[in-house]
Amino acid sequence: MKKTALYKGNQTIEIVERENEVLKPEEVRLDVAYCGICGTDRHAFHGVMDGRIGNDAVIGHEMSGIITEIGSAVKDHKIGDAVVVRPLDWCGECPTCKRGFTHICENLKFVGLDSEGAFQSSWNVNQRILHKVPKGVSLKVASLAEPLAVACHDVRRSAISSDDFALIIGGGPIGILIAQVLKNKGVNFVLSEVNETRLSIAQSLGIKTLNPIKQDMAASIKEMNKGSLADVVFEVSASQPGALSMTAFTRPRGKIVLVGIYGKNPEVCLKDFFWKELELFGARVYEARDFDEALAVLNIPEFPSEVIISKIYPLEQMEKAFKDLDEDLSVMKILIQCGDLK
Amino acid sequence: MKKTALYKGNQTIEIVERENEVLKPEEVRLDVAYCGICGTDRHAFHGVMDGRIGNDAVIGHEMSGIITEIGSAVKDHKIGDAVVVRPLDWCGECPTCKRGFTHICENLKFVGLDSEGAFQSSWNVNQRILHKVPKGVSLKVASLAEPLAVACHDVRRSAISSDDFALIIGGGPIGILIAQVLKNKGVNFVLSEVNETRLSIAQSLGIKTLNPIKQDMAASIKEMNKGSLADVVFEVSASQPGALSMTAFTRPRGKIVLVGIYGKNPEVCLKDFFWKELELFGARVYEARDFDEALAVLNIPEFPSEVIISKIYPLEQMEKAFKDLDEDLSVMKILIQCGDLK
Repeated sequence: MKKTALYKGNQTIEIVERENEVLKPEEVRLDVAYCGICGTDRHAFHGVMDGRIGNDAVIGHEMSGIITEIGSAVKDHKIGDAVVVRPLDWCGECPTCKRGFTHICENLKFVGLDSEGAFQSSWNVNQRILHKVPKGVSLKVASLAEPLAVACHDVRRSAISSDDFALIIGGGPIGILIAQVLKNKGVNFVLSEVNETRLSIAQSLGIKTLNPIKQDMAASIKEMNKGSLADVVFEVSASQPGALSMTAFTRPRGKIVLVGIYGKNPEVCLKDFFWKELELFGARVYEARDFDEALAVLNIPEFPSEVIISKIYPLEQMEKAFKDLDEDLSVMKILIQCGDLK
Repeated sequence: MKKTALYKGNQTIEIVERENEVLKPEEVRLDVAYCGICGTDRHAFHGVMDGRIGNDAVIGHEMSGIITEIGSAVKDHKIGDAVVVRPLDWCGECPTCKRGFTHICENLKFVGLDSEGAFQSSWNVNQRILHKVPKGVSLKVASLAEPLAVACHDVRRSAISSDDFALIIGGGPIGILIAQVLKNKGVNFVLSEVNETRLSIAQSLGIKTLNPIKQDMAASIKEMNKGSLADVVFEVSASQPGALSMTAFTRPRGKIVLVGIYGKNPEVCLKDFFWKELELFGARVYEARDFDEALAVLNIPEFPSEVIISKIYPLEQMEKAFKDLDEDLSVMKILIQCGDLK
């Protein structure tokens, strides 16, 4: 038997006791330790994804856990291993998979939305999406691997070098995690954000910040980057001002990585792309190597997990956790403790 | 003495006789043979650029000519050489020049807008922007080097390979020239255009076409590209439908080259960039190597210069030439014969 959090529609979560599913040969059974709440989970909680996930859905994908059972075809993992899951299910057959981009497979299913997720005490997952947690990383911190892998992928898409200066537009969890990846690579950067609470969290992490409402962005960036606008811009805000800023504050031949998910089409200054020969790279989820890099970054003693993990709630209080996130922008990341593991 | 076409404001051109300017040490004096009318010249003719060029401006930059005199510091050129001009004047000092991108210099002056252009029988230009015309290319055809260099640069920005399938959005002169560059590289492509006259010109050149108003773009492209959307898209239309099409018809991880100059910010589907990890590359003017490539392409016997050059007018009828271009979309390129050279 296991505890499972069911999404019952309309901002309601119900905790139920259920039987464990039968383990398939290529699967492992995990005791889920922690599972973070992602922006996508919040959309689901608010009913935006009802058509996709249905009622009684089990969501959650930013998880860590311990293997408790292995299927008959599983070779590279053993009982007792601490793991995280790369929650992608690709077809392997479409032209995009065949080009090697399985993470944006044309038939991609997202584990925890299109199939059952991790907000439960026990979970069966395919062995091909497991990543082993390094010894030095706790289960609590390991649950940050998934959002950090997003940030690693964003930075990989920019092919940034340590000579470059970056601008991060947006100081939510992903913006803050991109900052950690850049720090780890020795890249100088500044983060722009309009919300004072988020600005002070970033500052408490030693991140240089700009408030575009109060400060002259172009002049400040040029002062920090030897007279040039940003070499690389990460647009994480998914806002109309962010869409205009991303081209305004990039130097000629600079690169923009598009991270934010826009619900509707913003106005974009395509003339800036022409005039400055800018380059834009869309970035979505992660590849296996991004998870490997994320777990390595989490293993660095300086990684500020205490600041990023704002609160931890037991599974029973998951509904409250979602509501906290709605009400308080100072909350970065909430983890749900899904079982007894710590 | 020389004949010069002066822009007198408000769609008016006046032909005057003037003294030749004094030749500077680093300059050559050219007898201008032909000079094509560019979209930018048309904007100038309509008064859109009055603030930049002023009245009594001499515009024109798509030229060919013969060197008649060389300044004392000129080494690599001699009297009698047939040349074309790469009409860029860069500072060499700004960060962008220092990074090697002199063609998008932060202080770039465009010759024929920010300084005197080629709509005159004799013209003094700096030696550093001359390109020698190959023996097999006539002066008439050589005047296409500048717009063709734009097309070469656009294609270079895409790093396209002969395995790729391209979509060109927009069948004006630059779209047609991009088609020639792709043909020369052995790349398969289709051109989309809504205007029937332009469609039939493209078809007369053996170009596969699509009319997005009448045909199912996605299905047609997939049929032509083994089930995939376009690997590379050239957005040349500078229209709102073009801005949406450029992301809609590109395959996952495909590339978009932004060629069109947008007067106002269009809506762009940034979600497509995220979802398909699309890449966008702005392209502006050309580099020296693009002129070299353009002149080589013009030297190919199959280059359809007769279809691209719609009409030739003497300098005295330049005003009429601009008006013809306004009235008749079947006119691709009009050349002005600026002096006695043929």
